[in-house]
Amino acid sequence: MSSTSSSFSLSSLPVKAITSRDNPLYKRLKALAGSTHQQRKSGHALLEGFHLASAYLDVAGQPEMCIVTDGALRHDEAQAIVSRIEDHRLVTLPDALFGQLSNVVHGVGILLLVEKLATPLPDEVAQTCLVLDGVQDAGNVGSILRSAAAAGIQQVFCAPGTAYAWSSKVLRSGMGAHFLLQIHEDVEAQALIERLAVPIVITDSHGAEAIYDCDLSGPLAWVFGNEGAGVSQIWRDAVSLRVTIPQPGGMESLNVAAAAAVCVFEQCRQQRGRG
Amino acid sequence: MSSTSSSFSLSSLPVKAITSRDNPLYKRLKALAGSTHQQRKSGHALLEGFHLASAYLDVAGQPEMCIVTDGALRHDEAQAIVSRIEDHRLVTLPDALFGQLSNVVHGVGILLLVEKLATPLPDEVAQTCLVLDGVQDAGNVGSILRSAAAAGIQQVFCAPGTAYAWSSKVLRSGMGAHFLLQIHEDVEAQALIERLAVPIVITDSHGAEAIYDCDLSGPLAWVFGNEGAGVSQIWRDAVSLRVTIPQPGGMESLNVAAAAAVCVFEQCRQQRGRG
Repeated sequence: MSSTSSSFSLSSLPVKAITSRDNPLYKRLKALAGSTHQQRKSGHALLEGFHLASAYLDVAGQPEMCIVTDGALRHDEAQAIVSRIEDHRLVTLPDALFGQLSNVVHGVGILLLVEKLATPLPDEVAQTCLVLDGVQDAGNVGSILRSAAAAGIQQVFCAPGTAYAWSSKVLRSGMGAHFLLQIHEDVEAQALIERLAVPIVITDSHGAEAIYDCDLSGPLAWVFGNEGAGVSQIWRDAVSLRVTIPQPGGMESLNVAAAAAVCVFEQCRQQRGRG
Repeated sequence: MSSTSSSFSLSSLPVKAITSRDNPLYKRLKALAGSTHQQRKSGHALLEGFHLASAYLDVAGQPEMCIVTDGALRHDEAQAIVSRIEDHRLVTLPDALFGQLSNVVHGVGILLLVEKLATPLPDEVAQTCLVLDGVQDAGNVGSILRSAAAAGIQQVFCAPGTAYAWSSKVLRSGMGAHFLLQIHEDVEAQALIERLAVPIVITDSHGAEAIYDCDLSGPLAWVFGNEGAGVSQIWRDAVSLRVTIPQPGGMESLNVAAAAAVCVFEQCRQQRGRG
């Protein structure tokens, strides 16, 4: 096949169609789709499916590009997305080419290529926030972002070593939380500690006070560490409050995303009682 | 290579060594390692790493087989596991062959082949339990099992459609919870509902009472549904209590494993207050 693209009209939309795997844009998309490292390096993300696409459009406006399969264009939900995209940003692909960009087994055939949403590190953090100190599993990072957005937390700071928040897997498990949060990546501990105007709190299974007996009703910076190694020493040294989740069973620890959910919703419970 | 095995002595242990990928036992292990379907069908599981291996030995006694790399045998932690295994159950493999059985990137070179631990469905369930009604993500199932074991829950019932609890990924994320719980798989709703002597509770984001305002201090059957479709109709029809986790942020729902953690630890909090 030669590298070709042409314009045609489907459902009265003029659409650019890529038909060859040698097309430079397709090659760029494929390189991005296949490598979280490439996504992180370029600062781009691929948002797959109706839910992520419409959540992005609600918050951020036009994507760099919207990629759809010919088949997807026949469905109402895809049409609703596509009708919001400027024509010159729209590209169609045959199913076989699209399949190699997709991370979803039975996907709906729609992808947005976007720049990740980034905001500069604030001078001062005076509200409740989360710090992910090397949380490495993408599913855990996505689940924590989702819990944060549900709990009304606005800022999440990811230290080096944390899974790339805008990778396809984190986006998928975040279920749109990315568009309700300010997510700061590659944040060095010392730079953040200097900006925190709220107490730093970590969970600790040994010798700390039960989370229910601690006053969590004010703003806090919750720090959650790596699945294996836990919270790093620089954060341990900066801590104001260590709390423990009492665990009456025989296990000694919780999954980090489960622990984060228990913590932030215990804080919500206390704030609700005093609100 | 021909299909050979021989006996030799390492660190004074007589060990059966498999050196060929045509060895029938190796072929069986490889088929199991590569397919959760095969694991489920045969009722077997592969436990990888020191932590799962020693947790199994503590609870269940001898595995069907213990598979180690030559290199692993030189480490103290592996020696400590191997010293607990009956000689005729021990097999060594070269790193290259072991690598094809492993699901861990930097594994420690030790695997147990075991039958999954199964117990018959009890006639009556009178204690707090969990029902996984089609939770399909292996990481979510593992996280929920871990939360259950930490909360002191003893019985988990998995409906058809739930990820196989003894798959390598669920075992890994369960972190040993499997050996503190009784896990019942392929449990049909009607058979279980007839046996439940405790109220059935589900989470519902619309119109239910806040979880903090509900009395959760007695034993309950918590039902958590599929990530997309939620709890199925048969369980909705059988419910005694619907609770909601108040979410002051903009998201409408939590990851199912995060929601399960919030629920069972809110129950622990209430029980602690009254204990």
